[in-house]
Amino acid sequence: MSRIDLNSDVGESFGRYKLGFDERLMACISSANVACGMHAGDPSVMRRTVEKALSLGVKVGAHPSYPDLQGFGRRTLDMGPDEVYEFTLYQMGALDAFLRARGSKLTHVKPHGALYNDVYKRALKGDRTYCEAIASAVKDFDPSLWVVTLAGNVTMEIYASLGLKVAGEVFADRAYNPDGSLVPRGVKGAVIEDVEAVVERVVRMVERGEVEAMDGSAIKGLSFHTICLHGDSEGAVEMAERIRKALSERGISIKSFAEP
Amino acid sequence: MSRIDLNSDVGESFGRYKLGFDERLMACISSANVACGMHAGDPSVMRRTVEKALSLGVKVGAHPSYPDLQGFGRRTLDMGPDEVYEFTLYQMGALDAFLRARGSKLTHVKPHGALYNDVYKRALKGDRTYCEAIASAVKDFDPSLWVVTLAGNVTMEIYASLGLKVAGEVFADRAYNPDGSLVPRGVKGAVIEDVEAVVERVVRMVERGEVEAMDGSAIKGLSFHTICLHGDSEGAVEMAERIRKALSERGISIKSFAEP
Amino acid sequence: MSRIDLNSDVGESFGRYKLGFDERLMACISSANVACGMHAGDPSVMRRTVEKALSLGVKVGAHPSYPDLQGFGRRTLDMGPDEVYEFTLYQMGALDAFLRARGSKLTHVKPHGALYNDVYKRALKGDRTYCEAIASAVKDFDPSLWVVTLAGNVTMEIYASLGLKVAGEVFADRAYNPDGSLVPRGVKGAVIEDVEAVVERVVRMVERGEVEAMDGSAIKGLSFHTICLHGDSEGAVEMAERIRKALSERGISIKSFAEP
Amino acid sequence: MSRIDLNSDVGESFGRYKLGFDERLMACISSANVACGMHAGDPSVMRRTVEKALSLGVKVGAHPSYPDLQGFGRRTLDMGPDEVYEFTLYQMGALDAFLRARGSKLTHVKPHGALYNDVYKRALKGDRTYCEAIASAVKDFDPSLWVVTLAGNVTMEIYASLGLKVAGEVFADRAYNPDGSLVPRGVKGAVIEDVEAVVERVVRMVERGEVEAMDGSAIKGLSFHTICLHGDSEGAVEMAERIRKALSERGISIKSFAEP
Repeated sequence: MSRIDLNSDVGESFGRYKLGFDERLMACISSANVACGMHAGDPSVMRRTVEKALSLGVKVGAHPSYPDLQGFGRRTLDMGPDEVYEFTLYQMGALDAFLRARGSKLTHVKPHGALYNDVYKRALKGDRTYCEAIASAVKDFDPSLWVVTLAGNVTMEIYASLGLKVAGEVFADRAYNPDGSLVPRGVKGAVIEDVEAVVERVVRMVERGEVEAMDGSAIKGLSFHTICLHGDSEGAVEMAERIRKALSERGISIKSFAEP
Repeated sequence: MSRIDLNSDVGESFGRYKLGFDERLMACISSANVACGMHAGDPSVMRRTVEKALSLGVKVGAHPSYPDLQGFGRRTLDMGPDEVYEFTLYQMGALDAFLRARGSKLTHVKPHGALYNDVYKRALKGDRTYCEAIASAVKDFDPSLWVVTLAGNVTMEIYASLGLKVAGEVFADRAYNPDGSLVPRGVKGAVIEDVEAVVERVVRMVERGEVEAMDGSAIKGLSFHTICLHGDSEGAVEMAERIRKALSERGISIKSFAEP
Repeated sequence: MSRIDLNSDVGESFGRYKLGFDERLMACISSANVACGMHAGDPSVMRRTVEKALSLGVKVGAHPSYPDLQGFGRRTLDMGPDEVYEFTLYQMGALDAFLRARGSKLTHVKPHGALYNDVYKRALKGDRTYCEAIASAVKDFDPSLWVVTLAGNVTMEIYASLGLKVAGEVFADRAYNPDGSLVPRGVKGAVIEDVEAVVERVVRMVERGEVEAMDGSAIKGLSFHTICLHGDSEGAVEMAERIRKALSERGISIKSFAEP
Repeated sequence: MSRIDLNSDVGESFGRYKLGFDERLMACISSANVACGMHAGDPSVMRRTVEKALSLGVKVGAHPSYPDLQGFGRRTLDMGPDEVYEFTLYQMGALDAFLRARGSKLTHVKPHGALYNDVYKRALKGDRTYCEAIASAVKDFDPSLWVVTLAGNVTMEIYASLGLKVAGEVFADRAYNPDGSLVPRGVKGAVIEDVEAVVERVVRMVERGEVEAMDGSAIKGLSFHTICLHGDSEGAVEMAERIRKALSERGISIKSFAEP
């Protein structure tokens, strides 16, 4: 590939609480997933985040969540699919208003935290209702939007079969099993902390289209359009800067999947 | 006048809590001010309310509020004007998403409760910042929207001078001072409870374009485009039904101010 | 038995939202489970509810919940056991303050909604962590308090083995399987709506210490100390009044399990 | 004086959001004002904060606030005095539960942010209702508790006249007018940032019982029992550590006003 999208979760501050290094991080990426007030973010944070993203030419996506500020959207809440649809639509609209106010619009949607996980975990077990609920919200709002989901997961097919544009996502610093699934966080080595190793992985992902599995084997044929970076710590944002630089030096452009 | 708009606050249920007689009330009115989740309403309630309104041909407006669910948006919260702008924009976008999902869009915006009051009370004291914040949010979102405010109040001129379409609002069951201001709720007689008296007032408002003041004198030249009805009690919704009937019998059509 | 406790969930109004017929209901019962602000209730509602309960001689218990106002505490939220401990303790303390201000104190604790269900469902599957978290919160706050749980369920033993006083609860209007488990709500006949039938069941429960199963057989040996009544509808509170009357006429006193 | 109390606001993290350097700060002070979940803090944060305070021998007070997490309790919310009473009582009880669970209890109450300010500003204008509401909540909960308020302010007399123990509070880094009132934050020089100057001020306050006014004059006869320190930035906590050290070197003990 001669281009790749880099995406990050941003706009996760709230009121007095500052989280993340959004400005530095947004200078590295092409797609920003902006919190919509349910797990993080508030209208003031959303406005500032959107304005900063637009000024940097970063595409803005909604990052809808279960309504759980205290748990940061990381705890499963047993909602019905109708509620998933309604809460997703609400959050997309709320965020889009700030883009609209600046003459822009949403580019994509990526569910957050436990909702992101529950969509694909349910789908793996044959329960497509959450995935369909997200898909309906996106289509009803704007059928030209992209949905971001776990690369290689069945949700990619489900979203596509429902007529949506889908961006498969891989993780720069997460270890993979040979079958393309993520090594669970609890397992030793699941998160790769060595910056050089992560940079090398990312370059290999983009240049050869393959992800190195934990056992050293190469996972080929994984369809992915974007790499997820973190920015909630000093170290994370430095890693993002290194990745950006390494890709640029190799002539790989950082560009949203939504751009032609 | 041969036509008038009737508006009501609806969609003020929340989760398990049901408030108001929305279905019956929406059958009487032409403009619905729908709660956006900050003083009342949640994504599920908003969806149902929007769908019901559209099915009845009722125009939908946003009813943004201070974020104060426990106080039902009736307590002043000392926000800065920037926050008023941001919270209004957020709520407009969130509600509009449900309309957009059904191929429709917002028609108007009417601030709720303490925010509604603070906008015009501040303006009366020469502080236009809240009024301008609401105006900016509306213009930035969609400059073709109407804003609803207290008839005869200085906010009507401010909104108009900022390029917005303004609908002045009178109250069916509230007593007026001869100068066109509302008799404060604490004063005896401030709220008129006699159904016949209210119906007669409304007919006079529409047919002659004048409001009867508390002392019996006629307030003339008050520019108004809509009459506010309530539906939060059995009695209120019956009054709304009586008003609708009385106007219809006189050949007066109930039509949104936004319609040509 | 010549005495029985009747318990109900009360204080579930919130701000502008009124829920239930608390005054009438509290005149029928001996134990009130008062919402603590997480699924329902707010400090004003809690104060009024506590004062009313005390004036009627009704014992007050905490009714802690997952923090989910919009879902009324009826949706599972995947908290860790530490969080269950902390949120339970918080809610107990908050409610107890209103009792303390009137020279009284909590008598019992009964988890609400999804939390109530999750405690016993997890215990049935061998996961005692939630049950132990509730037990720790109760013991750390006041080891003389009672815990209310589903009669016949393993949680009764767990709580008792941890040194707590346990009150087993049966439901006046819910059908039972012959093994003493509740017929799930989805099943036809799971909720008994015929007032006479419910009254008769309750009398039989108390007089003979047995519950009639759905197939007509008698469930004997079920250890229970309290019967749960509802009051969230006109019909429910009338049923409660009928039950109270029927028991009184038979000389059965309505008395908290905590009273000697 | 040979002893003084140092107090700080702590426990103001929330969920994923970390705020302040609580551990370092609590090693410097004798009284901790712990957030109770309304402007900051959650049950998990409260538990950890209480446990840390107790392990360090720091006295714990409640830091009740308007319910405004997004505004961090810094915006006035126009509550009625009954609500102030009820929300204060709720928060005191919730926090006390964590102390009680560790065999301890509250020592004092200090309203937070806008509520703190509104109590004394209203009192200055002759409106004692908020002050009385706080006083009632404290007395109803535990009449042996102390209330912390602005030194020299009329609220000191009001609280005392209502039978409460009152601790007057001065600020280490805030400039004072010659009449003993605080220089408003907007004014240049209102906040003293020079560490040496602040340390010197504090020493003078304690050793001579006087506060230096902005014009260099000495404010004498100001009755105060505690000095407020901040810990929400690296610089603030270093200042606190310097103050602690300077006082210790002069043989002044850091001790809660509640200790004999």
